[in-house]
Amino acid sequence: MSGNNKDFLKNRIYLDNAATTRVDERVIESMIPCFSEVYGNASSLHYFGTNAREVLETSRATIAQCMGARPDELFFTSSGTESNNWALKGIALANRNKGRHIIVSSIEHDCIMNTCKWLSEEGFSITYLPVDPHGIIDITALEEAINPKTILVSVMHANNEIGTIEPIEEVGRICKKHHVYFHSDACQSFGKIPIDVNKAGVDLLTINAHKIYGPKGIGALYIRKGVDIVPLLHGGGQESGLRSATENLPAIAGFAHASKLCFYDMKNEAERLSRLRWKLEEFISSNYEHAYVNGHPHQRLPGHLSFSFHGLEGETIRLLLLLDDMGIAVSAGSACSSNDKSNNASHVLQAIGLNPFEARGAIRVSLGRFNTEEEVDIFTDLLDKALKSLTSIFSGNQKSSLW
Amino acid sequence: MSGNNKDFLKNRIYLDNAATTRVDERVIESMIPCFSEVYGNASSLHYFGTNAREVLETSRATIAQCMGARPDELFFTSSGTESNNWALKGIALANRNKGRHIIVSSIEHDCIMNTCKWLSEEGFSITYLPVDPHGIIDITALEEAINPKTILVSVMHANNEIGTIEPIEEVGRICKKHHVYFHSDACQSFGKIPIDVNKAGVDLLTINAHKIYGPKGIGALYIRKGVDIVPLLHGGGQESGLRSATENLPAIAGFAHASKLCFYDMKNEAERLSRLRWKLEEFISSNYEHAYVNGHPHQRLPGHLSFSFHGLEGETIRLLLLLDDMGIAVSAGSACSSNDKSNNASHVLQAIGLNPFEARGAIRVSLGRFNTEEEVDIFTDLLDKALKSLTSIFSGNQKSSLW
Repeated sequence: MSGNNKDFLKNRIYLDNAATTRVDERVIESMIPCFSEVYGNASSLHYFGTNAREVLETSRATIAQCMGARPDELFFTSSGTESNNWALKGIALANRNKGRHIIVSSIEHDCIMNTCKWLSEEGFSITYLPVDPHGIIDITALEEAINPKTILVSVMHANNEIGTIEPIEEVGRICKKHHVYFHSDACQSFGKIPIDVNKAGVDLLTINAHKIYGPKGIGALYIRKGVDIVPLLHGGGQESGLRSATENLPAIAGFAHASKLCFYDMKNEAERLSRLRWKLEEFISSNYEHAYVNGHPHQRLPGHLSFSFHGLEGETIRLLLLLDDMGIAVSAGSACSSNDKSNNASHVLQAIGLNPFEARGAIRVSLGRFNTEEEVDIFTDLLDKALKSLTSIFSGNQKSSLW
Repeated sequence: MSGNNKDFLKNRIYLDNAATTRVDERVIESMIPCFSEVYGNASSLHYFGTNAREVLETSRATIAQCMGARPDELFFTSSGTESNNWALKGIALANRNKGRHIIVSSIEHDCIMNTCKWLSEEGFSITYLPVDPHGIIDITALEEAINPKTILVSVMHANNEIGTIEPIEEVGRICKKHHVYFHSDACQSFGKIPIDVNKAGVDLLTINAHKIYGPKGIGALYIRKGVDIVPLLHGGGQESGLRSATENLPAIAGFAHASKLCFYDMKNEAERLSRLRWKLEEFISSNYEHAYVNGHPHQRLPGHLSFSFHGLEGETIRLLLLLDDMGIAVSAGSACSSNDKSNNASHVLQAIGLNPFEARGAIRVSLGRFNTEEEVDIFTDLLDKALKSLTSIFSGNQKSSLW
C-alpha cells in the first residue's frame, strides 16, 4: 500500500502549506536518534536523562535565536493552539485582579477566537479590533480601546486565511506605552519572514513546527522575562515549572532543525515563493475578470494567495473537490474549520468586508518549499479546466458568460 | 557522534522504563509515512486530508479497542499530563454549579496533585484519600468522603513510584452508586495489564504512548458518552470540538501501533517481566538485610520494583550517580521531580508511612521490553559493587557493619 501511495502522491500537487507541510527529510533524520538513542526522560538524573536534556537545551537555544529571544524565555508546548490558549488564559488568570479586559483583532485564528469566547463566559470583556479591507488592523481603534482594565492585546503576525502581515511593531509600541501585555500568534510567519521579539515589542509569541516542514504536535510560547502568567498544564514542573509534561524530545529536535533550515535560506526562499505566487496571481487576474484577490496587495506572506470569483462563491467546495479529483490540494480558508464540509462563512473574510455569501467563497493557495514552478503551471491549467467544467454545469454551455 | 553514541549505549543498561521508554523500531516504522506521505492536515477536505483522517480514525479505533471503549469516546491529547489536567479541570469547570468537591488518592502523580492545588486556589475543595502501607487506597474512607457536593473521584490505576495496582473496579462501583464521575490515570498500566473501561466503571481514563515504546508528545483521554466536560484547549474544533489543535498524525499512528504491540503480547511479557523482577527482589532481599521493598507484595505492575536501604536513604542520589557511572540507569521515585537534584521527599512514600528522611531513599527499577535476564544479572553485580563502595565511604572500611 505504501508503494502505491507513493506512486499516487507523485501525480499530486500539494498547495496547502498554510494548513500543514510535509516534514523535510532532513528534519526526519534529525528526529530519529531521539526515538531510538537519546530516548531518556529529560528530567531524569542519569546518562539517558542528561543526554536528552542536552538536546532539549540546544534545541531551545537554536529556536530562541531565530527570534532574538533568550533561551530561558522559550517554553515548549504541544502546538500553536496550546500556546495561544496558554497565552490568553494564562495572562487572564494571572492578571484578573488588575483588570478583565482583553483586546484581539477580529481576524485571529479560531483558537484565539474560541479562547476569547470562553474567557468572556468567565467574566472577561473582549474587544475585537476592526481591520481595513486588506486585513490590516486599525491602530487608532487599538489605542482608543485600551483602558485601565486592559491586561492584554493579541494581534497575529500574519493571517492564515489571507496572508496579510500586521504592523506588530506599532502594536508593540502602543502596548508598551500603556503598560499592557502584547501577545502575537506567529504560526504562519515564523520561519518565513523575519521576526524579532525585541523589535516587535512582543511579550508573548506563539510559534509551531508543522507549518515550517517540522513535525506536528510541537509548538512553543515565548514569554518575556517578568511577564506574569499561570500554567495551563500543571504537573511535574518541567519547563521551569510553567509547562509540565515529559519533554517531547524528538519533536523538539525536529522543530529546532526545521527552524534552522528555514532561517538559513529565508530570503532566497521568500523571493522564490513570492515570484511563483505573483505568477499565479497574474494568471488569475488576467484570465478571469470576475476574480478578486483577498488580503493585502504587498504586505503579505511570500507564498500565500487567497482569491475568489464573483458569482461562484457558493460553489467553492465543488471547485475544490473538482481540483482534488485532478490531483490538486488547495483549501477554502483555514483547514481547521473545513472538515465538517459545512463551509461556514469565514470570520476573516467578513472582517475585511465580504458579505457572508462571499465569505464562503475564497480559495487559498499556499506555496511551500517543495513546490516548483512547473507545479504552479500545472495548477493554472487544471484550475482553468475545473472552472470551465464548473461554469458549464451552471450555464449548460461550454462558454459561460461569467468567464 | 551518532556512531560513538551507539557504542556508548551498547554498554549501558536502561532500567527506567517507568520514566519513559525507547521507541520500538516497529513503531518508528509506522510513523515515518505520516511525516513524509500522509502528511496532510486531517481537517482538510482534499486527498491529503482525507488520507490523514483515515489514519487518524483507524488509530483511534485500535486504541479504543484496547480498553473496550467506543472510538468516539477517545480523544487525543499531547500527553498524560494534558489528559489529567483536562479531566480534572474540564470536569470541575463544567460541573461547578453542582458542587465543588473532588476526591483524589494521596499518591497520585504530580500532574494530578498540582492540578488539585490549582483547583483548590480556584475555590474547589479537595479530599486526599489515605492509602495503606502497601499503597492501596482506603475504600471505606472513599465512601465516607463522598458528599452531595462531590463531582469527581480520581484514583490512578497503578502508581508510578511503587507500582501498586489500585482496586479501581471497587472505586468505580462506589462512584456509580453515588452518581459521581470517576477518572483514573492509567499511564503506568495501559499496555501492561488489562484495563476495560466498562468493567472498571471509569468515566474518564488517561493513557499515553511514551511508557509503552511509543512516541512522546501523545496521549489520550477516554471520556464516556454523556460526561459533562469543557475543553482545555479551545480552537479549530478538532476531536469533536472537545480538544483543538492540528491532529498529531505521526504520533497518533505510532501510539496505535505501540498499543497493538503491547496488547498482542501482554500476558507473555507480563510473565517475563514479573519473573525478572522477582529474581531481582530475591537477590536484594536475600543479600541485604537492611533492604525493604516499597509497594504491594503482589498487586503490582509486572516489571516494577521500588526498594530502599535502612540507613542509606540520605545517600540515594549518590548511589544512583555511582550506578550511572557504571552504566546503569535507574531512578529515585518519579522522573518528573528528579532533575532539580533537590531530591524532595516523595509524597507517595510518605503516604505509605515512610518518614520524610526515608521518603527520599527509594530506588526504582522499572524493567521493560528491551531488558534481558543478563542485564538484570549485570545490574545486581554492579549494585553490589556500588553499595560496597558507598558503605566503605561511610565506615572507612570495606566491611561495613550495615552490610
